Amino acid sequence: MHTYPDLLKLVNQKIAQTSFGSNPKELYEPIEYMMSLGGKRLRPVLTLMACDLFGEDVNKALDVALAVEVFHNFTLVHDDIMDNAPLRRGKETIYKKWNMPVAILSGDLMMIKSTDLLAATEISDIRPLLFLFNDTAAKVCEGQQIDMNFETSKEVSHEDYIQMITLKTAVLLGASLQLGAMVANASKEDAEHLYQFGKNIGIAFQIQDDILDSFGEVAQVGKMIGGDIAANKKTLLLIELLQSVHKDDKIILEALFAEQNQEKKIEGVLNLYSKYQIHAFAEKEKQQYLTIAYQHLDDVSVPATQKQILIDTAKDLMERMS
Amino acid sequence: MHTYPDLLKLVNQKIAQTSFGSNPKELYEPIEYMMSLGGKRLRPVLTLMACDLFGEDVNKALDVALAVEVFHNFTLVHDDIMDNAPLRRGKETIYKKWNMPVAILSGDLMMIKSTDLLAATEISDIRPLLFLFNDTAAKVCEGQQIDMNFETSKEVSHEDYIQMITLKTAVLLGASLQLGAMVANASKEDAEHLYQFGKNIGIAFQIQDDILDSFGEVAQVGKMIGGDIAANKKTLLLIELLQSVHKDDKIILEALFAEQNQEKKIEGVLNLYSKYQIHAFAEKEKQQYLTIAYQHLDDVSVPATQKQILIDTAKDLMERMS
Repeated sequence: MHTYPDLLKLVNQKIAQTSFGSNPKELYEPIEYMMSLGGKRLRPVLTLMACDLFGEDVNKALDVALAVEVFHNFTLVHDDIMDNAPLRRGKETIYKKWNMPVAILSGDLMMIKSTDLLAATEISDIRPLLFLFNDTAAKVCEGQQIDMNFETSKEVSHEDYIQMITLKTAVLLGASLQLGAMVANASKEDAEHLYQFGKNIGIAFQIQDDILDSFGEVAQVGKMIGGDIAANKKTLLLIELLQSVHKDDKIILEALFAEQNQEKKIEGVLNLYSKYQIHAFAEKEKQQYLTIAYQHLDDVSVPATQKQILIDTAKDLMERMS
Repeated sequence: MHTYPDLLKLVNQKIAQTSFGSNPKELYEPIEYMMSLGGKRLRPVLTLMACDLFGEDVNKALDVALAVEVFHNFTLVHDDIMDNAPLRRGKETIYKKWNMPVAILSGDLMMIKSTDLLAATEISDIRPLLFLFNDTAAKVCEGQQIDMNFETSKEVSHEDYIQMITLKTAVLLGASLQLGAMVANASKEDAEHLYQFGKNIGIAFQIQDDILDSFGEVAQVGKMIGGDIAANKKTLLLIELLQSVHKDDKIILEALFAEQNQEKKIEGVLNLYSKYQIHAFAEKEKQQYLTIAYQHLDDVSVPATQKQILIDTAKDLMERMS
């Protein structure tokens, strides 16, 4: 069994060895730049872990792992345009450092390269991998569109929200694991259980993200507490609060949405979260998805000791340690 | 052998039968809209023609044909954002009818769907098709970037220009044919000759496009004569003129670039084209690529009578009749 740092090293070596192209440089320099920004490379590491879990040589899954990472970075490049985001991992986004057309085109090229990498895998039929990969990619696009729709939606239900984070974030974690299992020729059932493990961990992670924005420590979160509240962002917490508030508090809440004093706004919403026990609700919700995730991991037909690395990785992820 | 109208009908039926998805509608309605704008469907028809040429059932190549058409439309959707284009085939572009994020995301989804369609083809190994498809897709992105670079480049050489139109337009015509030949299990040599036929026809077509902008009839071109001149666009004609002009005429030409009166500007540049015999030069250049194209078609090992439909299609294309 390989450790996370082992697998991360393999992924980073593979990225360093891979040439995406060179001419014209306006197209390929942004790709090299984006791929070199680093990060924890969670998705490709999960692909290798899944392959390792079934005793297959992880090198066999390296092309797929890189495909997943390149795809993920493609979504970030295009999302940064749509979100008008200036920074990504503390560095300028491609959109800001170059320009919008370059960000569109270099993103497009990354998407193209991702299926090319996938197809380089040495297995007899790549079709099942490609169909899963493309189906997941389509879902990620759908999730991004639904997220953008939320900005102008008056009402977003709890179910809508869970669907959005499932599509935008969770399915790719599930697919990263499933693809690794498929390369290792795992049974359909095992591959599907791993997918469900990753997907449900992903949902729990996004809920945790919402919780930390309101109830985290600055040191843990790495950014200002209450950013989502300040932006009136429809998080699971706010959606639940909107469902729960009594008439008088609803008036208070609506006044807070328009409040210009950010400190006062954050304090006011946090008070309502406390009154309606939103923190406990969100923790319970998160726990439900974690329970489902671990159940699926239990059902994977390999010895429990071999699964420990996936449990540890999920725990680190929830604590934002990895 | 099937006729162009036969094959066009097949392509349009296939498009009408294909569901790309439905939810969220902001993502899938633009795709349906774009795919229903029509046009001559040249690329997928070429794929079917190539398949037909080797006696294979054209239905076997329908998925690949649609993949090519969806990919082509994806490039148009993203190009329209970069070019800030309001209209496409006389209808509003997705970028204008919806918005920029919707155009980025629905374009992304079309790219994803295109490799999915390709992989649906019933042949034992789709890898060679996917690699050709992705390699071509990457080249089209490179061509678009090089074309954008030209807008701010001081000097563009004849070779640079031919490379740009080759990447941006010609390789996809070549690949459309080659993919059809591959589905029909044609020999590598025959498939490669068809690729070269399509690529060289594509280059000739782009040169013809430049010629018609300056020397065409409005009825034939369907738009104002001299549009490229008015926009100081670096066409093959202007590049050749810049290479040829003597010192005094160069001063006149540079004054024309800054001329605000469009009629005067177009007339002035056309006079210089006439003086330096640019029309004849471009016709000769076009003819060279056509000669290469037909040589490659000659070398394809099927009876000459069966190739007539490809010759007719190329002729119609050059006369903008198809």
